[in-house]
Amino acid sequence: MVSSRGVRHDSMRARNLSVVLATIHRSGPATRAALAERTGLTKTTVSSLVADLLEAGVVAEGGVVRGGERGRPGVAVGLSGHRVAALGLEINIDYLAACVVDLTRTVRLRRVRRADNRNSDPREILEGLRGLVKEITAEAEQAGLRVIGAALAVPGTVEDGVLRSAPHLGWRDIRVANLVDLPFEVDNEANLAALGELWFGAREPDFLYVSGEIGIGAGLVVRGDLFRGTFGLAGELGHVVVVPNGPTCRCGGRGCLEVYAGQDALLGDLASVGDLVARLESGERRAQEACERAGHALGVALTSAVHLLDPGRIVLGGIFAPLFRWLERPVSEGLRGRLGQMRGTPPALVVSGTGGDAAVLGAAGLIIQQILAEPAKMLGL
Amino acid sequence: MVSSRGVRHDSMRARNLSVVLATIHRSGPATRAALAERTGLTKTTVSSLVADLLEAGVVAEGGVVRGGERGRPGVAVGLSGHRVAALGLEINIDYLAACVVDLTRTVRLRRVRRADNRNSDPREILEGLRGLVKEITAEAEQAGLRVIGAALAVPGTVEDGVLRSAPHLGWRDIRVANLVDLPFEVDNEANLAALGELWFGAREPDFLYVSGEIGIGAGLVVRGDLFRGTFGLAGELGHVVVVPNGPTCRCGGRGCLEVYAGQDALLGDLASVGDLVARLESGERRAQEACERAGHALGVALTSAVHLLDPGRIVLGGIFAPLFRWLERPVSEGLRGRLGQMRGTPPALVVSGTGGDAAVLGAAGLIIQQILAEPAKMLGL
Repeated sequence: MVSSRGVRHDSMRARNLSVVLATIHRSGPATRAALAERTGLTKTTVSSLVADLLEAGVVAEGGVVRGGERGRPGVAVGLSGHRVAALGLEINIDYLAACVVDLTRTVRLRRVRRADNRNSDPREILEGLRGLVKEITAEAEQAGLRVIGAALAVPGTVEDGVLRSAPHLGWRDIRVANLVDLPFEVDNEANLAALGELWFGAREPDFLYVSGEIGIGAGLVVRGDLFRGTFGLAGELGHVVVVPNGPTCRCGGRGCLEVYAGQDALLGDLASVGDLVARLESGERRAQEACERAGHALGVALTSAVHLLDPGRIVLGGIFAPLFRWLERPVSEGLRGRLGQMRGTPPALVVSGTGGDAAVLGAAGLIIQQILAEPAKMLGL
Repeated sequence: MVSSRGVRHDSMRARNLSVVLATIHRSGPATRAALAERTGLTKTTVSSLVADLLEAGVVAEGGVVRGGERGRPGVAVGLSGHRVAALGLEINIDYLAACVVDLTRTVRLRRVRRADNRNSDPREILEGLRGLVKEITAEAEQAGLRVIGAALAVPGTVEDGVLRSAPHLGWRDIRVANLVDLPFEVDNEANLAALGELWFGAREPDFLYVSGEIGIGAGLVVRGDLFRGTFGLAGELGHVVVVPNGPTCRCGGRGCLEVYAGQDALLGDLASVGDLVARLESGERRAQEACERAGHALGVALTSAVHLLDPGRIVLGGIFAPLFRWLERPVSEGLRGRLGQMRGTPPALVVSGTGGDAAVLGAAGLIIQQILAEPAKMLGL
């Protein structure tokens, strides 16, 4: 009986810690009295919980504000960006990336290493990433930050922490464990990019984030939550069928969107998206035609996606962001022409605010969210 | 202060009523003592709540079972199918339907009226439905059942209770109110059919229900919940693009699945699905080719749907159910050939267990679910 009571007390304390932290996160700095009023907890309980959160460096005392009762001024407690941080990681087809983000969702450090990771040896790439992790966590420590957890974005399908298939990397069934000695998550690049857009970009609660890379993915956010489907594999926009008997795709299917609008189709023999943008700006016809073709295919695939997923708006990210000026018209035409009678207006088409960083930021953001939701568990309180 | 306390007491009582009823619904008949143990409520509270539920006819006393404490036998309380019921309604393109379902999800009454509702006057059709409602509720009353609420399935997109667009009926922006003098819901036919399949058919928690009618729709169920998208318009499988520049569809788009696999495309100049099945059974080549074409188109559209929605399995319903024998191979080939490398195996393809009744059953089921979730509100307790 005693141990059962003990567990109950601990779990209640854990729950109350997260309630207090969520209240601070949602409503901003507040006095202990205001926190007691907003949470329904006693002032004694709030004071004790706040003391633990202060000790762990999750919150800090700030300026003097008016408290919750009889207008007496009090010391406000707000989220602290000074001690606790999360690590975001990304393996993509042409780069490795890492970032350290503090609890206020401020990006403190960021590193990108260009490399051609196509058809690579997973051990080598993971060794390279381990090096990047060591570098950036050492730097974070020097800045007084304690990294609490890490998440990794990968360009492929993930089930239960296993990278099932990343056709462009040439990887299958890779368990990415022991990369860091911390709580660790692995997720699909487009899923984490959608969360990156939610927390660091437009911050709208309802949208389909379209991730244009060598592959194309998408992540649907509905009322602030990522829709993952049954096995966590939803949002594979790149393999929506655009032309039933079209060219063979890396996935084994035919006529997938990626074949028409992935980075390779857009660039042709150009070396980089920057080159393509330069040619588009100088009005080169071949470059414009490539964008037109890709935009039309994207419009067709997004029509199917809108019918099936019903997104609030469509956010074009990754390499589609710098190309937005040239893609917007053909994509919009496709959506307007095809969605006509089923809905009043097609969802708005907008450009991502996070550029190529969405996925690695979303990875760090996922850990920040876990810390805010379960401070007791994540910080050993 | 007094009224605030009153509200708090009422809302706690309402919550506890639904906790007790949910426990009975989930775990089957139980003694008051067992209910107290399972819910954590006192035996006095449980007895008083059960008395109210008995009085309302939501539960009934059944046989003698062993109770929760010291093995003493007690009288079990279980869901009652004898007094409270829900009305399911459906307007479809070639029929009107109604059913009365009791709290144990037993179908008590069912009526279908064949009619050609294409390009019809909404007032006339709704008048016809009102007649059907009067008939069936009168009959329910004679059987001692009290109909508590009704839901209506419509073949089109619904937002906030307004039927936005039903292209085959030729209806736009129709507010279907005052149809019955009861709590009333309106929802898309495929959404409600998916819930019908969940509650009355296979009862699996994860699947995409594909509704084959004159139009084609789909409803995704993930962990027992219907996925509705941002505006409640998700799952419009019939308008997934199969051929970008294909024939014009009733929706205004081109090359939609419906053009290739809707009832009209399948039947050609035949009068009914029964006729088609008869010709398929006699091995008629033209009929087989029609199924082959429809099956291939369905396989392409379902490939896109699997990539975007990630369903647990695919359930073919409506007119696709009697045609399953002939559709299974071309659809499966499409899925297997195209989904190969992205997932280990494509989702299983199975036939619906509810036939053409899924939507009207799901409509009644939706109200049953509301009664079980909010007995105090729905029954005025």
